[in-house]
Amino acid sequence: MKEIIHSNSEILKTDSFVQLIGDRNKQFIIKLSTDGETETHQGNIHHNEIIGQSWGSKIKTKQGNTFLILQPSLDDLIREINRTTQIMYPKDIGYVILNLGVGPGTRVVEAGTGSGALTTVLAYLVGNEGKVYSYEAKPKHQAYAKKNLKSFGLDDRVIFKIRDIKEGFDEKNVNALFLDVQDPENYISQVRDALMAGGHFGCILPTTNQVSKLITALKRNKFEKIEVSEIFHRYYKTSATRLRPDDKMVGHTGFLLFARRTSPNPIIKN
Amino acid sequence: MKEIIHSNSEILKTDSFVQLIGDRNKQFIIKLSTDGETETHQGNIHHNEIIGQSWGSKIKTKQGNTFLILQPSLDDLIREINRTTQIMYPKDIGYVILNLGVGPGTRVVEAGTGSGALTTVLAYLVGNEGKVYSYEAKPKHQAYAKKNLKSFGLDDRVIFKIRDIKEGFDEKNVNALFLDVQDPENYISQVRDALMAGGHFGCILPTTNQVSKLITALKRNKFEKIEVSEIFHRYYKTSATRLRPDDKMVGHTGFLLFARRTSPNPIIKN
Amino acid sequence: MKEIIHSNSEILKTDSFVQLIGDRNKQFIIKLSTDGETETHQGNIHHNEIIGQSWGSKIKTKQGNTFLILQPSLDDLIREINRTTQIMYPKDIGYVILNLGVGPGTRVVEAGTGSGALTTVLAYLVGNEGKVYSYEAKPKHQAYAKKNLKSFGLDDRVIFKIRDIKEGFDEKNVNALFLDVQDPENYISQVRDALMAGGHFGCILPTTNQVSKLITALKRNKFEKIEVSEIFHRYYKTSATRLRPDDKMVGHTGFLLFARRTSPNPIIKN
Amino acid sequence: MKEIIHSNSEILKTDSFVQLIGDRNKQFIIKLSTDGETETHQGNIHHNEIIGQSWGSKIKTKQGNTFLILQPSLDDLIREINRTTQIMYPKDIGYVILNLGVGPGTRVVEAGTGSGALTTVLAYLVGNEGKVYSYEAKPKHQAYAKKNLKSFGLDDRVIFKIRDIKEGFDEKNVNALFLDVQDPENYISQVRDALMAGGHFGCILPTTNQVSKLITALKRNKFEKIEVSEIFHRYYKTSATRLRPDDKMVGHTGFLLFARRTSPNPIIKN
Repeated sequence: MKEIIHSNSEILKTDSFVQLIGDRNKQFIIKLSTDGETETHQGNIHHNEIIGQSWGSKIKTKQGNTFLILQPSLDDLIREINRTTQIMYPKDIGYVILNLGVGPGTRVVEAGTGSGALTTVLAYLVGNEGKVYSYEAKPKHQAYAKKNLKSFGLDDRVIFKIRDIKEGFDEKNVNALFLDVQDPENYISQVRDALMAGGHFGCILPTTNQVSKLITALKRNKFEKIEVSEIFHRYYKTSATRLRPDDKMVGHTGFLLFARRTSPNPIIKN
Repeated sequence: MKEIIHSNSEILKTDSFVQLIGDRNKQFIIKLSTDGETETHQGNIHHNEIIGQSWGSKIKTKQGNTFLILQPSLDDLIREINRTTQIMYPKDIGYVILNLGVGPGTRVVEAGTGSGALTTVLAYLVGNEGKVYSYEAKPKHQAYAKKNLKSFGLDDRVIFKIRDIKEGFDEKNVNALFLDVQDPENYISQVRDALMAGGHFGCILPTTNQVSKLITALKRNKFEKIEVSEIFHRYYKTSATRLRPDDKMVGHTGFLLFARRTSPNPIIKN
Repeated sequence: MKEIIHSNSEILKTDSFVQLIGDRNKQFIIKLSTDGETETHQGNIHHNEIIGQSWGSKIKTKQGNTFLILQPSLDDLIREINRTTQIMYPKDIGYVILNLGVGPGTRVVEAGTGSGALTTVLAYLVGNEGKVYSYEAKPKHQAYAKKNLKSFGLDDRVIFKIRDIKEGFDEKNVNALFLDVQDPENYISQVRDALMAGGHFGCILPTTNQVSKLITALKRNKFEKIEVSEIFHRYYKTSATRLRPDDKMVGHTGFLLFARRTSPNPIIKN
Repeated sequence: MKEIIHSNSEILKTDSFVQLIGDRNKQFIIKLSTDGETETHQGNIHHNEIIGQSWGSKIKTKQGNTFLILQPSLDDLIREINRTTQIMYPKDIGYVILNLGVGPGTRVVEAGTGSGALTTVLAYLVGNEGKVYSYEAKPKHQAYAKKNLKSFGLDDRVIFKIRDIKEGFDEKNVNALFLDVQDPENYISQVRDALMAGGHFGCILPTTNQVSKLITALKRNKFEKIEVSEIFHRYYKTSATRLRPDDKMVGHTGFLLFARRTSPNPIIKN
């Protein structure tokens, strides 16, 4: 994965992931192959013409359209993966990572796998010493995520499981656990069993009714430091002389909920 | 650092960083020591009483106040570090990480070091294979950051430099570079020299006037894929039956600006 | 009221309402009287010195502090009234007015009266041909509002009533009805009886749980065109060269809910 | 106008303005006429069938689609007028009204007339005793606004003028003046001449660069109590059991700027 978004080489190679950015911010991500060809509405790209060139170059098609050639960013890869489901946005994923403290060596559980956008970021960040355990009830969803993770070279950091999490998680003492499911309030005792004492729980939920139910379940299961928030992300037009926010913005993705597992031990007297 | 926020052990030890959370969300972070004692307005905490206990336990002081004992989260550590300067918030840092693609193995430059909040997250995420190069003009600021990084066990991942970045950066071909300085528009050619072709540039700026100037400088230096945005983070009261946003929120920290370095090579013909 | 905020004369008179604006945006509203004197932390203001002067003038106190002398704006009067309760802000009141269509000649009911901030705006806008019917359960609250309305010269446009609205409203066929009470879901049949067919209903509610309950009650009572929204208002520092939003903002006042009363008649066939 | 949005009668008549609301919130505003017929994608509406019926009734077309029959709200009329230009939204207009204090008897100037959305609200609120002076450089724009105002029965409250405001305003001592033009910074001395001492100035501007320029011009012309802000309006899905914000929202319309004209007289000594 590192090589996909941050190459050590300035030169494009066969098998490189490439983001092509055309006019009007039209952009797509492809994988280069010898003699490969990519069709676009603004003209075709022959892979051989860009293999061996430098990142950050531009290519002009026969129709006269120009494309900027970049490595896809982590942010762009997530958006690409998300196209099918559109739930977790970079604005949310970034804060989730920070709040759960996911980094090299972290052992983290997530359910469901979904399209694999969050799985990708988790697997990238836990490094070779860490591990991601990803649960999903629907085999079809996980297949799409698995394929993505494999193509990013991150599949050996992820243990995929097809499982109704009502049956519980196999792991114990994990550092963090994230749920992106419809009824998280029904699995909090299972979450408690998987997390280490003091461990981090996180969740994303679209409706206020779900948030209320989950708060109740967390309090009943003695979770503390409960935090509920939402993140807005507003883009601006990039004109120096006519700087202004975009006309439209995303109004809602989900509410973010975090909490910490407590110890069942009796209160210490000082 | 990993051990500080995600211990492998459920048991508190001498030298553990501990976050104590009392009533009304009163919280502070301390480091345990044998026979140590921490004074609070709600009673004293004798470290020996909690060493050997489990994370997620509670302790009651003689005054009858109860504190929850947790490992500090990455998010909490940043807020603690930020108290002196209050510029980069978790909401911003999380998105910066994702946009720049910082993870295990990344080589990233930042200027200025400031209080070291961003430095801490960068150093945590780049792991043992990556490296952070942190520039600062004022020795005093960097001393504070250095002390923080050392206490987190992250100092060997960071090369600190006292330097006016007008003189340029020593590094070449870095994956990403982040500026948190007042006049970034004056250093863009230096940024271009340090970044690899296609590399990621990021910046945080409080005023719209600075954003306009930086956009101009970036376009003049052939940066592309310029993105300007801002992130709002709104917290909710965690009551299941009276769910509602907090009365007050942070209205502004800074505008986030990202761009990609392009190649100076001529346009490729297809 | 008109004379209070938009004088026909440029000259301050005895009995004029005056807003004094000092340094650091310190501001307060007073009523002038012959030989009157107002004490402030930045020096005293002798009313005789400003009676006969022009609006928009400045006065310097003996301590050397300067105050700008303005007529209070409607916006400022609302904020002044609200100091005791802090619920309805200008951002909300403005949109409520527009959504309910309140203007000269409108007959509008509100409950509860509260501090009278909304009552003031309603009474100002309905003019001499319109009428405001304001219900309140607690006599004490209404006394404060009554006093305010009287001082603004708007009391003859308002019929105040002390009443538990469970007993219903006396009016029929009113154009619009606004509720600012804790449990609006319990009074929707009473609302329906007071509104004309097609009439406008509005409400402000702090929690999401209340919104859910009210939506249910409105649908059960055949209200249609239900709209739920919230308004954010962010201020900027007024520096031309360092333009930026304020550090802090109001995160929440209430959710605004609007709906239209339908006719009980059978569906018309075309 | 009053009769258009708040009829005294519950019965639809010839010449009534009617808002028809079909499935999926499909809605449009028509004017009834004897033997009139309105074509919609969901079936035709014969006016004679609804004349004489009650507001808030429903009509079913031959295709089986149902329409709710309401008087258009002020909010809806503005949105209808705005379709051509889309600049001033109800969220902004509501706050402008409140900040300028526009109500029965107010004398207010605006430029440019634009589509007449703000003109409509101003004319409605100033009543028969007030007056709106509306300036526009382009005759074509004003013709559209004039037609709207006439159809709402508000044309006798508005004095329309075709004029480049560089030449100044004819009025003196007006209570409030609102600019919706591209370069307001060029007309501030003209604004000062038209406003009464202490009078209210307001403006809407899409870009931060314009805001900076206007702040400079206002300070140079001794305006005080300058306020810059922006308003966000977020709608929710109206489901009691799945309450959540809409996926998309308007990200930006314009920045609102307000200020007060001061007196040129020397500072009063106390």
